[in-house]
Amino acid sequence: MGVLVVGSVALDSVETPFGEARDALGGSATFFSIAASYFTEVSIVAVVGTDFPPEHVEFLQSKGVDTSGLVVEDGETFRWAGIYGYDLNERETIETRLNVFETFRPEVPERLASSEFLFLANIDPELQLSVLDQVSSPKLVACDTMNFWIAGKRSALEQLVKKVDVMIMNDSECRELAGESNLIKAARKVLDMGPSTVVVKKGEHGALMCGGDSFFSAPAFPCEDVFDPTGAGDSFAGGFMGYLAKLRDVSPSSLRRAVIFGTVMASFSVEEFSVGGMSSLRMADIEERFRMLKELSHFEP
Amino acid sequence: MGVLVVGSVALDSVETPFGEARDALGGSATFFSIAASYFTEVSIVAVVGTDFPPEHVEFLQSKGVDTSGLVVEDGETFRWAGIYGYDLNERETIETRLNVFETFRPEVPERLASSEFLFLANIDPELQLSVLDQVSSPKLVACDTMNFWIAGKRSALEQLVKKVDVMIMNDSECRELAGESNLIKAARKVLDMGPSTVVVKKGEHGALMCGGDSFFSAPAFPCEDVFDPTGAGDSFAGGFMGYLAKLRDVSPSSLRRAVIFGTVMASFSVEEFSVGGMSSLRMADIEERFRMLKELSHFEP
Repeated sequence: MGVLVVGSVALDSVETPFGEARDALGGSATFFSIAASYFTEVSIVAVVGTDFPPEHVEFLQSKGVDTSGLVVEDGETFRWAGIYGYDLNERETIETRLNVFETFRPEVPERLASSEFLFLANIDPELQLSVLDQVSSPKLVACDTMNFWIAGKRSALEQLVKKVDVMIMNDSECRELAGESNLIKAARKVLDMGPSTVVVKKGEHGALMCGGDSFFSAPAFPCEDVFDPTGAGDSFAGGFMGYLAKLRDVSPSSLRRAVIFGTVMASFSVEEFSVGGMSSLRMADIEERFRMLKELSHFEP
Repeated sequence: MGVLVVGSVALDSVETPFGEARDALGGSATFFSIAASYFTEVSIVAVVGTDFPPEHVEFLQSKGVDTSGLVVEDGETFRWAGIYGYDLNERETIETRLNVFETFRPEVPERLASSEFLFLANIDPELQLSVLDQVSSPKLVACDTMNFWIAGKRSALEQLVKKVDVMIMNDSECRELAGESNLIKAARKVLDMGPSTVVVKKGEHGALMCGGDSFFSAPAFPCEDVFDPTGAGDSFAGGFMGYLAKLRDVSPSSLRRAVIFGTVMASFSVEEFSVGGMSSLRMADIEERFRMLKELSHFEP
């Protein structure tokens, strides 16, 4: 059955010190599904406007992504514009035009209601909850969120967090959700809110996974040429969920390997604008970076 | 022969959100030597004033630190005062009174001139160079520095960097010395300046070591109770150098384990004010955290 993702499909305009892209393919569900497509079947539930270029749909399909849940509505596609400075960890949002996304009420096609692996990308937690209600008995549900919802829709978000298996969020979101500056304590607090696993993305500092009493610290891939960090987090989630869905296993050791595959996909994602870095990988490329991360973090006991 | 360290011995006044300490034992050579003392013999070359409490000297001696190179000069001991906010990665220096440290010209006692392992803690690079000239044929020289010297004494610092084996610095210092925002590229640039190994300390994000074409990414120890980060970097360096001096081996695999022992010593150091966290450890405590770091970063190939 692969993995089902519900999130945004967007047209991004991005400026970095290394160049810019206008109206390029973007959105959380996009980055996620392309990353996950290297591991398993992916189905997408999202909305675009009538202006959405058909070649983007064809590109998703060429990666094996099931776009039958991609609704086209009258109006313009969600657009986001941002600028990164030399510190690529920080970005400034220049413009967010929700357009057709503003009234998006995701409907999971009946065929996908039995999906075993579900990723609720960063959208309004009320919508995330409604999607969760439409999927009958998932084996694993993971969810992302952002500061905007933590501040503005905390109650719905807390309801959601109670019901998901894995929270995937960045470090500042984790600290904010937990109201705790120490990241280790913050991750534990989020665990106490419901999920069995918390994955904290730390950008160039790697990722931290926390479940039960056990922590896993994953290194970042040592990228020398970061061109565009947009979508890195969703690409991470795509590699993470795609690998687990392929295995249909969520044991602790599989979760650890999933974090590494997430790291690998994020590393490819940031090397080009938009989805360029993940557009034509071979499995051997992915496995090579997995091995490099193993070597990077290895020391003798 | 153990390891020789040249640096500061100070009285620190530190305020954090969790409490404060006044005129507590501090200084780079202090933290370094206590951390290293768990692995090997340590000799210290530094200066204090006549106001320096004799119990601090006795404490160092009780850890096996050779204090015969600790000169007492007329005047007051070097004093530093700083405040940390909730983000313990950032601190504000309130006061720096160099006192007797201002005219300190380190002299290596003849007996220590044949030291095989030498750590040049963060002092004026011209003094670091003069120490290097006094040690005949060290097996391994490591060195720390800070933004102040990178900006103010770049030429002397570059001369020094050319001559040391290992540069140990934090991430912002590495970026500043290299003039490069990407940390991986920055570490490579510092390598090109001379040393065979660069170790970048990233606080709560662990450490990155770079040598030849190989990178090593070490996790941070997941500290839930960080009380006082002062001296963490020097404690790291003490664990790192102490372990290597004990082994008398600087092979790549020993260097990786040394980074982990450095991480362990830093984790103890930050758990109490001043040197309290490292005052009475057993080797078993140290080895336990080493094993925990192994488990923390392990994943199946």
